[in-house]
Amino acid sequence: MTDDTLDSRITRNNLRVRGFHLDVYDHVNNARYLEFLEEGRWAYFDEHLGDADTLRKGVAMVAVNLNINYRQGAVLGDDLEVHTMLSRISGRSAVMHQTIHRVRDGAPVVDADLTFVLLDMQTQKPLPIEGAFLETFEPLLVSR
Amino acid sequence: MTDDTLDSRITRNNLRVRGFHLDVYDHVNNARYLEFLEEGRWAYFDEHLGDADTLRKGVAMVAVNLNINYRQGAVLGDDLEVHTMLSRISGRSAVMHQTIHRVRDGAPVVDADLTFVLLDMQTQKPLPIEGAFLETFEPLLVSR
Amino acid sequence: MTDDTLDSRITRNNLRVRGFHLDVYDHVNNARYLEFLEEGRWAYFDEHLGDADTLRKGVAMVAVNLNINYRQGAVLGDDLEVHTMLSRISGRSAVMHQTIHRVRDGAPVVDADLTFVLLDMQTQKPLPIEGAFLETFEPLLVSR
Amino acid sequence: MTDDTLDSRITRNNLRVRGFHLDVYDHVNNARYLEFLEEGRWAYFDEHLGDADTLRKGVAMVAVNLNINYRQGAVLGDDLEVHTMLSRISGRSAVMHQTIHRVRDGAPVVDADLTFVLLDMQTQKPLPIEGAFLETFEPLLVSR
Repeated sequence: MTDDTLDSRITRNNLRVRGFHLDVYDHVNNARYLEFLEEGRWAYFDEHLGDADTLRKGVAMVAVNLNINYRQGAVLGDDLEVHTMLSRISGRSAVMHQTIHRVRDGAPVVDADLTFVLLDMQTQKPLPIEGAFLETFEPLLVSR
Repeated sequence: MTDDTLDSRITRNNLRVRGFHLDVYDHVNNARYLEFLEEGRWAYFDEHLGDADTLRKGVAMVAVNLNINYRQGAVLGDDLEVHTMLSRISGRSAVMHQTIHRVRDGAPVVDADLTFVLLDMQTQKPLPIEGAFLETFEPLLVSR
Repeated sequence: MTDDTLDSRITRNNLRVRGFHLDVYDHVNNARYLEFLEEGRWAYFDEHLGDADTLRKGVAMVAVNLNINYRQGAVLGDDLEVHTMLSRISGRSAVMHQTIHRVRDGAPVVDADLTFVLLDMQTQKPLPIEGAFLETFEPLLVSR
Repeated sequence: MTDDTLDSRITRNNLRVRGFHLDVYDHVNNARYLEFLEEGRWAYFDEHLGDADTLRKGVAMVAVNLNINYRQGAVLGDDLEVHTMLSRISGRSAVMHQTIHRVRDGAPVVDADLTFVLLDMQTQKPLPIEGAFLETFEPLLVSR
């Protein structure tokens, strides 16, 4: 967690685990983590892409794959921090890397890679990530 | 539950309580019941209003009030049945009455009245429930 | 909204409407508001009842009724504020009053009354709100 | 889809996409598919592991990784079918393979591999999948 805190290309947001996040095992439910991660990506867009005209007109960022590791179950009252960054651009797709850790002790809870494409909403085909798109995304890339 | 079973104006649908429906108290979470009820209303529309042209064009059924009683907490593995019916029409609003009971013993779990209006999506104003709307809804009315 | 801001008995928390909160009508889904309200009540407990030993041992606050008005649909990007307060105590039940408004213009989005009981988890019967319970709750009561 | 229909080791369950499953893009939300998949696994347990004493006492099936491909967005009214099967056992972990397709034309919507361990709830350590566990799982294995 150490280096990340100074890197403005990484968006951080916090949440506290509540009763309605849990399931029968008294841990945060697997599906709920995806909402925590989606909240992280919306916060990322607000912070880094709010002015990106290129993303507004008829182009949607659409998830094609999610690979998520569940490291440790979060429980009621845990304060969690979500880190969101752009970690790869390649041809017609890109990857957001996201982690969730417990604030108290830094213990890893979840890490995930979400692969997305830029979908042309008229043709429903992925657009190559080049030109204005690449200019928007490349400065945000965090190599890992 | 007895009389209801023969009344074609009442839509019934079933579900089994799963681990992700529960919360920290090992009961179905309060918010989740609203999804069970919404599922019931979609099933109702499929059954009774699928051909209702009057509802298709620029008119939305929008909830303005929900009054819900939580009678008894449902737990993991419970089989539940949702009953959905139209119980009142008055001027510019109407009421769907919905109940959820446990199949095993008929125990009441939830009952709710949802008041809705027909919103003209262009003007964003509620339409009076008269003419073609009334013809559609009136035969479905279950007096209680 | 004006008077509330100085009243320490009212808990306020904020959220921004995200894509996963919406439904087919592009408004926040009815069930999702119940999660916003539940988040408000957990924040209230953190703020006002965190030290209340009386609530910890074998006693659960269980909802028995929710009466909720949907005033206006919140949309993507809206910043919302939730106000949560205790508004009534009577015999064996009490009422939390909660409102959600849009921060930008103060427009009301949702208001709700949640009636709850204190359930003795061993006997599964509601306890009278008296003695230590009443001492805990009475100073928090906001008369309306 | 053809061969699967005769294989009793594969559990099938159905659902219809409703308004509250969608998000701002009018497609089923990414997180919601995980609930569809979890429903599939509960149905699988009901069908294949309901009598498995070995799984009842102090052992939890805990997800450690999910790898999910989003093939095509499902929309309002789509009838979907979920297929759930056990696809791999290896040492201390095993994999459930799940697919979701659209009933109308068999179009793939989602496919996923969920890796899980059998957690000893006292020690919080994964148990080797051998002995009674292996006897329970091996006949269910669908090689792919």
